Amino acid sequence: MDDRLLLDRIRGIIGEKETEDDCSVFDLGNRFLVMSTDMLHETTDFPEGMTDYEIGWMAAAVTLSDIASMAASPADLLMAVGLDRPDRLIGITEGADACCRSVGARLAGGDIDRHAELTIVSTAIGFVNHEKIIRRSGAKPGDLVCVTGLPGRAQAGLEGDPRFWNNLITPIPRVREGIAFSEGGATAMMDISDGIALSLIDLGLASGVGFSLDPSLFPLIPDIPATRAEDLFLFGGGDFELLATVPVECFPVAGVDTSVIGVVTQNRDIISGGAPLPRCGYAHRWN
Amino acid sequence: MDDRLLLDRIRGIIGEKETEDDCSVFDLGNRFLVMSTDMLHETTDFPEGMTDYEIGWMAAAVTLSDIASMAASPADLLMAVGLDRPDRLIGITEGADACCRSVGARLAGGDIDRHAELTIVSTAIGFVNHEKIIRRSGAKPGDLVCVTGLPGRAQAGLEGDPRFWNNLITPIPRVREGIAFSEGGATAMMDISDGIALSLIDLGLASGVGFSLDPSLFPLIPDIPATRAEDLFLFGGGDFELLATVPVECFPVAGVDTSVIGVVTQNRDIISGGAPLPRCGYAHRWN
Repeated sequence: MDDRLLLDRIRGIIGEKETEDDCSVFDLGNRFLVMSTDMLHETTDFPEGMTDYEIGWMAAAVTLSDIASMAASPADLLMAVGLDRPDRLIGITEGADACCRSVGARLAGGDIDRHAELTIVSTAIGFVNHEKIIRRSGAKPGDLVCVTGLPGRAQAGLEGDPRFWNNLITPIPRVREGIAFSEGGATAMMDISDGIALSLIDLGLASGVGFSLDPSLFPLIPDIPATRAEDLFLFGGGDFELLATVPVECFPVAGVDTSVIGVVTQNRDIISGGAPLPRCGYAHRWN
Repeated sequence: MDDRLLLDRIRGIIGEKETEDDCSVFDLGNRFLVMSTDMLHETTDFPEGMTDYEIGWMAAAVTLSDIASMAASPADLLMAVGLDRPDRLIGITEGADACCRSVGARLAGGDIDRHAELTIVSTAIGFVNHEKIIRRSGAKPGDLVCVTGLPGRAQAGLEGDPRFWNNLITPIPRVREGIAFSEGGATAMMDISDGIALSLIDLGLASGVGFSLDPSLFPLIPDIPATRAEDLFLFGGGDFELLATVPVECFPVAGVDTSVIGVVTQNRDIISGGAPLPRCGYAHRWN
């Protein structure tokens, strides 16, 4: 069982709509409040060699990325830290605080616990005007499939490419880009933390569409074999870039550096270069 | 080092005001949004014998209690769950969902992770009008010190008194009581999750006051020796009752069943029955 199957069972309890997007959505009347939470812990989420500062940065960044993916502006972040050693808290807090400040958010508090294994849960809120929110469910056939940055770098960094170590350990939440996509008319959006392939599956399910990707358009990591670069691009996890669908007439989107990698299709298949895209990427597994 | 010392070091990074109350406070313009997060895990927080449903309930309740202690109405709760076994998620979710519904809140989503030790972080938001929020810092000399319920029951339950097992494992967030205290003019408030003695220390520091308690007024657990009952009352952890200070002219407070246990003093000492109150209660320790 992977966590996507578990999620299906949770939907039966708390509702379908509550679990579809990167954030929960609460209507404040004049705007939406969005909220997201992420649990990270040492053995599975923090590569060896990270400093405590970098760990704190990453823990904040993954959650702020969820806020960004709804085109919201992050406001406050709370961090619950289960510490194996108390002295780690200062570096972790400084890193999280710096990440929050880098996107105009505030580290507003949290909880301290002790734990056999360092465990951090960041929870953030953000705000977005009613007409500006972007969900996973708005993609329309004919829209362009766009992605920011150079996906695959985090996975390459994890596998030892020193050029991309920083992409792995101190990801940048794409807050500015998320808002630019919204201003520019994007129809659906999410971040690609589990890899582009899995993200497309989620986006396709939520929107009731499929995708046709053109590998010749993929922005690939330079100076490695092309087939390897393409695998990293499609299946690598740990990048916190944004995947968005944009109507043709809205492209290019002002203020965001993005690559078109394909189009949205009425047919629900996900095709890359004429062949079905394998369902691979980052997923927790229960054996 | 205990977590109160660690907290002092965090204040240097994120600010004094951000860590003083049970919740962070964000000004929405027309009202305050309050937010709180709590990490619980199996070996230190969930007594043996609890069902997964009860674990989920407790994890939600401790966080909703923080919202209640600011006199806010809870809205959404997110739950990040690190599972040792995936099949536990259903019961945990059902328990958390039931606890949320019991106070008019919504379990709105979360995160699933795997973890060697079951770990749950609940984060909740709530709303309160500007003039209705109650912080730890408003207590005034002469105010009455009030507490809801019968504190000490959770600790008694933990120590084997079967009458109070349910008080320990399925605490009730005092949302209705928090709002009633606010409507009735309370000046400061917090929950007593770490015990009354430690809570009074925090309340006294935040308000710049002391307290004089009269043990003859304490509402004590019946049918156990009085000295033992008094210890449980003052130093037992795990009760999620509310401690509030109320001006004499506002007492009794409509809609809340509360006991007066002493008065707020200008002198910053904390005295019970004429003797200084020991600094004892629940605190994580780092050795």
